[in-house]
Amino acid sequence: MPLVDAPVAFEIRLTDGDARMGRIVTPHGEIPTPCFMPVGTRAAVKAMAPDELWAMGYRMVLANAYHLAVRPGPELISELGGIARFMGFKGAILTDSGGFQAMSLASINSIDEGGIRFRSHLDGAPITLTPESAIALQQSLGADIMMALDECTPFPADHARAQASLELTARWAERCLAARTSPTQALFGIVQGSVYDDLRRLSAAQITALPFDGYATGGLSVGEPKAAMREMAALSASLLPPARPHYLMGVGTPQDLLAAIGMGYDMFDCVLPTRNARNGGAFTSEGRVAIKRAVYARDPRPLDPRCDCRCCTNFSRAYLRHVYMSGEILAARALTEHNLYFYGRLMREAQAAIASRTFKAYAANVTATIEAGEDAIRGTKN
Amino acid sequence: MPLVDAPVAFEIRLTDGDARMGRIVTPHGEIPTPCFMPVGTRAAVKAMAPDELWAMGYRMVLANAYHLAVRPGPELISELGGIARFMGFKGAILTDSGGFQAMSLASINSIDEGGIRFRSHLDGAPITLTPESAIALQQSLGADIMMALDECTPFPADHARAQASLELTARWAERCLAARTSPTQALFGIVQGSVYDDLRRLSAAQITALPFDGYATGGLSVGEPKAAMREMAALSASLLPPARPHYLMGVGTPQDLLAAIGMGYDMFDCVLPTRNARNGGAFTSEGRVAIKRAVYARDPRPLDPRCDCRCCTNFSRAYLRHVYMSGEILAARALTEHNLYFYGRLMREAQAAIASRTFKAYAANVTATIEAGEDAIRGTKN
Repeated sequence: MPLVDAPVAFEIRLTDGDARMGRIVTPHGEIPTPCFMPVGTRAAVKAMAPDELWAMGYRMVLANAYHLAVRPGPELISELGGIARFMGFKGAILTDSGGFQAMSLASINSIDEGGIRFRSHLDGAPITLTPESAIALQQSLGADIMMALDECTPFPADHARAQASLELTARWAERCLAARTSPTQALFGIVQGSVYDDLRRLSAAQITALPFDGYATGGLSVGEPKAAMREMAALSASLLPPARPHYLMGVGTPQDLLAAIGMGYDMFDCVLPTRNARNGGAFTSEGRVAIKRAVYARDPRPLDPRCDCRCCTNFSRAYLRHVYMSGEILAARALTEHNLYFYGRLMREAQAAIASRTFKAYAANVTATIEAGEDAIRGTKN
Repeated sequence: MPLVDAPVAFEIRLTDGDARMGRIVTPHGEIPTPCFMPVGTRAAVKAMAPDELWAMGYRMVLANAYHLAVRPGPELISELGGIARFMGFKGAILTDSGGFQAMSLASINSIDEGGIRFRSHLDGAPITLTPESAIALQQSLGADIMMALDECTPFPADHARAQASLELTARWAERCLAARTSPTQALFGIVQGSVYDDLRRLSAAQITALPFDGYATGGLSVGEPKAAMREMAALSASLLPPARPHYLMGVGTPQDLLAAIGMGYDMFDCVLPTRNARNGGAFTSEGRVAIKRAVYARDPRPLDPRCDCRCCTNFSRAYLRHVYMSGEILAARALTEHNLYFYGRLMREAQAAIASRTFKAYAANVTATIEAGEDAIRGTKN
């Protein structure tokens, strides 16, 4: 397939069923897809250094326009060369619009046609995020990929509420496109529709009618049952223009990612690997490990016997449990590094499996091993 | 000078005035001296990974016998191969005896001829540390260098109290030597005497009469004026056997270390570079930087323009201030790494200056640059 030109170019090199392997080319370099983006909310991926992300193969990080608008502010970041340079990351940056955080974090807010009004979670200062200001903000932050301002429909929402929400998102989407002035920064639209098939179809029709550079499925992983998430993600993926990047926002576990790659998604972000790590949770090839469990107190084995990351090369489970129980920063560092390494390797292996047309078997095998391991872990005490 | 054999061998290769350049050889490798030991209280140097310490040139880390006795316990560490292997550090480990922590942290304690009785700061369990148990503990932790159990005389202490304290330390010192059974683990004695010349002489005479593998000056940096610290450190150094390693415990700033190297000290430990880092404080070639100051908010320069550490290579002061103000773990990491790099380079430069017989000029020049920088910083606002 040809390289589709746009502020970010996208090329699908090989497919295997609905799964796609390719690359996104941005002003800050090339990202092999499918790709996972570590979440760097405040221009830092928690507990990590940017050169470590790069060394693990990460070429794009997600940052949060809302948080960076509040502190240190877009002028400062712009003055210092944009987010990537500000944070010392050699790769590309995708920013979310700030809408999700405005709704989930701000103490007071209202949403209407004009935009989202809320108060800073830091100092209570009033802030209004409009489609126009969300784009201006992301442009000045220097994002390689910007996200349209949407209303991330809360769960549960009844059909009428969900429809009103997606219609607002569609009107804002047009305004976002109109507001974009930068020729080098891509803009992605977001499909909403809650857990309703007809509304997902409606939203996809509205958003894909607009000339975005890529398309995201939003409003999932917000509390709905896992089966509904998978079903809506699959439906939405089938409705996105094949030649553009498909981004499933806020998802998920390793098993979720493999399932979504099988649906045709190219991009992911999620706080799970970083947040769980800080709470002592590790993703391994044999399922999740909660390092605080007493069963690991004298365990000389690495976190994941099949892993060659720095954490698994240097530390025993007993030591990781000790530093976690002691509140050492190293615990957050080591588990985060392991989890991100695990997610990064999953993406590389998925790319290779697609290239060799063995993705379905690969995904089934990895998923089965993880689930068998989790069953075994559930069977032990402590 | 010949390599003095002992559980740890010590060789003085070159001297420049009273300053000495050489090496300590332990079962876990060789440590060039003068050396600074990062403090790894609970078998982890806060915010650092052990391979980073190694990459910066650190070959010996201090760990805390008291903390490790409380958690995870010496049996577990012994079972997992000793502290160095437990924490994934390729170099050597010096443990303090636990006496200082027993006095400074434990909620209830009493000290008498038998030892120190206190309650665990974690769960209140009663613990008694005797000279014999302190040695058994450090032996089972697998320390390369163990410290004798001493009473770290508090400041202020009147002459009678300070004398009683150092006499107790001397009696314990003999018991520690008698208790040592390991032929491969070194044991250092500690000179006390508070801020009294005659008591420092008395303590040095008592301790150096005993066949320790090295000798430390203790009881300084505990609240006494800086001038008294320097004076007592110099006096004590002049009384230690020249052919053995001289260790100044718990000191200090870069200027203090240079002064102490000039007195003939070979080894140092201090929490300053690591603790200050977590509070936003950096040691630089131009004096201390408090990164939270508003003056750095838009400062694109590295923390230390003369430094090539990972922090100074990747991050601006503006970014470091942002991550510090945001409470990101990366702030603690980056500043700790910089500070330890700075201390490590200071040691390497001091070794080179001694080798070229230019130590006095080197120390004077570094000290003057730091102090001029600190004067300039004090002159600015915010």
